[in-house]
Amino acid sequence: MTKYTEYKNTRTKINDISKAISVLHWDQETNMPKGGAGLRAQQISTLAGILHEHKTNETYGKVLNELSNETLALKEKRNVEISLKSFSQNKKFDTDFVIELSKTTSECFQAWQEAKKQDDFGVFEPHLTKMVELKRKQAEILGYEDHPYTALMDEFEPDMTTKEVEVLFEQVKNELTPFIKQVFEAPQVNDAWISKHYNHQKQWDWGIDLLKFCGYDLNTGRQDVSTHPFTTDFGSQDVRVTTRINETDLMEMSWSTLHECGHALYEQGLPIEEYGLPSGTSVSLGIHESQSRLYENNLGRSYNFWQFCYPKLQALFPENLGNISLQDFYKSINKVAPSLIRTSADELTYHSHIMIRFEIEKALIEGSIAVKDIPSVWNEKYKTYLNVDVPSDALGCLQDVHWSHGSFGYFPTYSLGSFYAAQLYAKLSTDIPNYENEVIKGNYQPLLNWLRSNIHKYGSTYKASELCERATGEKLNFKYFMDYAKNKFGNVYELELAKV
Amino acid sequence: MTKYTEYKNTRTKINDISKAISVLHWDQETNMPKGGAGLRAQQISTLAGILHEHKTNETYGKVLNELSNETLALKEKRNVEISLKSFSQNKKFDTDFVIELSKTTSECFQAWQEAKKQDDFGVFEPHLTKMVELKRKQAEILGYEDHPYTALMDEFEPDMTTKEVEVLFEQVKNELTPFIKQVFEAPQVNDAWISKHYNHQKQWDWGIDLLKFCGYDLNTGRQDVSTHPFTTDFGSQDVRVTTRINETDLMEMSWSTLHECGHALYEQGLPIEEYGLPSGTSVSLGIHESQSRLYENNLGRSYNFWQFCYPKLQALFPENLGNISLQDFYKSINKVAPSLIRTSADELTYHSHIMIRFEIEKALIEGSIAVKDIPSVWNEKYKTYLNVDVPSDALGCLQDVHWSHGSFGYFPTYSLGSFYAAQLYAKLSTDIPNYENEVIKGNYQPLLNWLRSNIHKYGSTYKASELCERATGEKLNFKYFMDYAKNKFGNVYELELAKV
Repeated sequence: MTKYTEYKNTRTKINDISKAISVLHWDQETNMPKGGAGLRAQQISTLAGILHEHKTNETYGKVLNELSNETLALKEKRNVEISLKSFSQNKKFDTDFVIELSKTTSECFQAWQEAKKQDDFGVFEPHLTKMVELKRKQAEILGYEDHPYTALMDEFEPDMTTKEVEVLFEQVKNELTPFIKQVFEAPQVNDAWISKHYNHQKQWDWGIDLLKFCGYDLNTGRQDVSTHPFTTDFGSQDVRVTTRINETDLMEMSWSTLHECGHALYEQGLPIEEYGLPSGTSVSLGIHESQSRLYENNLGRSYNFWQFCYPKLQALFPENLGNISLQDFYKSINKVAPSLIRTSADELTYHSHIMIRFEIEKALIEGSIAVKDIPSVWNEKYKTYLNVDVPSDALGCLQDVHWSHGSFGYFPTYSLGSFYAAQLYAKLSTDIPNYENEVIKGNYQPLLNWLRSNIHKYGSTYKASELCERATGEKLNFKYFMDYAKNKFGNVYELELAKV
Repeated sequence: MTKYTEYKNTRTKINDISKAISVLHWDQETNMPKGGAGLRAQQISTLAGILHEHKTNETYGKVLNELSNETLALKEKRNVEISLKSFSQNKKFDTDFVIELSKTTSECFQAWQEAKKQDDFGVFEPHLTKMVELKRKQAEILGYEDHPYTALMDEFEPDMTTKEVEVLFEQVKNELTPFIKQVFEAPQVNDAWISKHYNHQKQWDWGIDLLKFCGYDLNTGRQDVSTHPFTTDFGSQDVRVTTRINETDLMEMSWSTLHECGHALYEQGLPIEEYGLPSGTSVSLGIHESQSRLYENNLGRSYNFWQFCYPKLQALFPENLGNISLQDFYKSINKVAPSLIRTSADELTYHSHIMIRFEIEKALIEGSIAVKDIPSVWNEKYKTYLNVDVPSDALGCLQDVHWSHGSFGYFPTYSLGSFYAAQLYAKLSTDIPNYENEVIKGNYQPLLNWLRSNIHKYGSTYKASELCERATGEKLNFKYFMDYAKNKFGNVYELELAKV
């Protein structure tokens, strides 16, 4: 057995354990009876411990170090490089730190749930303070060149720096924010039809249709219902999505389905022969999110997409949609309005929500603000960027789960997703012959083929920035998102082009 | 930490891994998309390897050996004794043997599927021959006092000997077989209504009702559909059942639901504080089967059970059952008839099917017949015991999966289940005040309470034979089953009591 085969076998075993944990999580969210919660947490924790033992096994480390000195082909070299980085990082933390972080995360999450319920930030504050301390310590242990935030962000968006994110949000602030203001001033579109009554079963069937239209393979996947929609995979031959159905909001299910579909298509497109290796694994959360947002927004909220789909949707719900024209439907699914809650924000203001979180969490990690300052800073920024008055912390700084989980550096990947998506979409629409005509016909296969061969099949063989450059000819450039936004919403809101 | 706590912690971890594997299996049978099969088998195999490492870990063995020399309370002593036995047995097999058995099992199962499909025993024969060789070798490695079959049966029915099973089947042959013959000669009951059309959803709802009536806790369980009904547990707070629904056989679903319900009630009744320990685990397959058969047959096929349930069933399916009286319904669900297939056999002839399998597998293991003789021996025994001509091996000796899995010594536990059930039922019907009146009222809680406090709560604290003796005042005695059979079927078939 060659050293590389030995490495590959270990990675396969590590991945098997990791995917088994994913099955336990998936079951927990979709099927598990309430009473099973306590035991399930314990079973997952036991497997997580075993996973950690395998990831930090000395023999494995030795193989990695030896391989890193061998001459390998590009893909193999990159696999070893990523695995060694991950191994070394895992090794940096002593058991005490790991236990303390795990304990704090569990307590912090409990406290957040309670604080949100009671609308009392004070319940959350001491736990989050402890969490931020640990995260700052974690950044020091991991090490960084420019900013401690970079060290934390690396878990979600490897190889991106804080500076790069700052530059992007400067552009959001200077270009997107004024444009949003202009949209706010235009006459608002009417979307009252969305909140009529839509039968659960019919919505479910419609969701399955959407998945099929987009090329999601039900032979290697399935959809279920869960409180919060998510995608999970147990290898690219078993990739599952969940959705939620709200009988008084038709589009909630549609957007979540298209969003998760994008994530799932990426996972289904990863090369199965690279199972367990970086080359068989998604490259970053930003790229992952680009796939979901591309299907949800660039394709899913486009006029041409609904030229094919809308008549079918109308036929399903004639009582509610019979009198709504495609044009009016299109405008109302692209309504832009200031709002309090990130997850239900539109395509444009979404990035203001993210910018606020990025600025706050970066400041927390560098120590320029304290946890106790969060509510006032939050409310002030919502006023400045979105002209929104935050009525309570429950609807303000307590709305998201991320910080309670210790996920600092996660939020920017949501915006990165949209920015990457816009750039990819601009390229593929010109690469694919008669692209818009295919979309009008309901043929989304060329789109999927393009993503398969430009993104999915590579796994982590290239860094996110390289992948973007190879696929589009240049590194991530905010201009594509801005062009997309101006073109689309300028049209929806009938803004004067000169002003835009 | 005391040595016993150390032992308990290890057992908990071992059980966590084992239950995680059960989740992966459950998902495989109920939810997994087809394409996921290959990866899932690999993931289960990886976890199985990790489980084996933990079960045979030297440190764990040392703790067990030290504890076995300490003075412990009865339950703790028994836990250590069982765990040490299991540890020592696992240690007896070298890796080569384990790999060979695993490989042979996989090939044998594939060959059995193919042989059954093609109705060609020759396809199965060489693989089963190899399997029998390995099983005989396994018995030698494990060691035994009386008969190699005892060593194999120990996995399923610990502490029972081949001799004891032989004695039981002697009674089946001498007492039950002539009685069955007498029943065959009586005028047959009419059950044509069973195979009318019964709506899928209504059957599903009825199954859920049955589960609830019997006290199955849906807060710590759930029901799904699978090809073959089964019960699985991930600890006593998450115990799941599956059923299958045949739209042209109302009772198939009812019997499978009541059967699995009995298994599940046992699991839900095991003490959660003993999770992972023998005292928190079912004691034997025979006792497990006694719980399922008690609910399916002793309760579920009784006249009084249906006094409560039948009007509800009639109301669900008035078009099919409106004109069938309770008396006629009761008779037809207790029809006794010779048949080819074990799984659909009635309460009486079922044991003839098992006796045939027991005689054959015992002969294979002791080497008094060869695998190539199976078809002729099988057909001959079916003629002798059931007066049935076997038209093909597919409907004969290829019908069951067990031997292809290497499960020799499993079949007798099905009959043991019925015999234990009859003895327990006789005792509980006199122990519980006004038992039959409670059943007539649809109150099955006193029954469950009796089983909880006489069987479930003990786990493996007592051996099966001791458990039976403590609960009923005597060791397993075939007389109870024979009395039950004569009393019930003498009545159903209106046999002359003198002749009975």
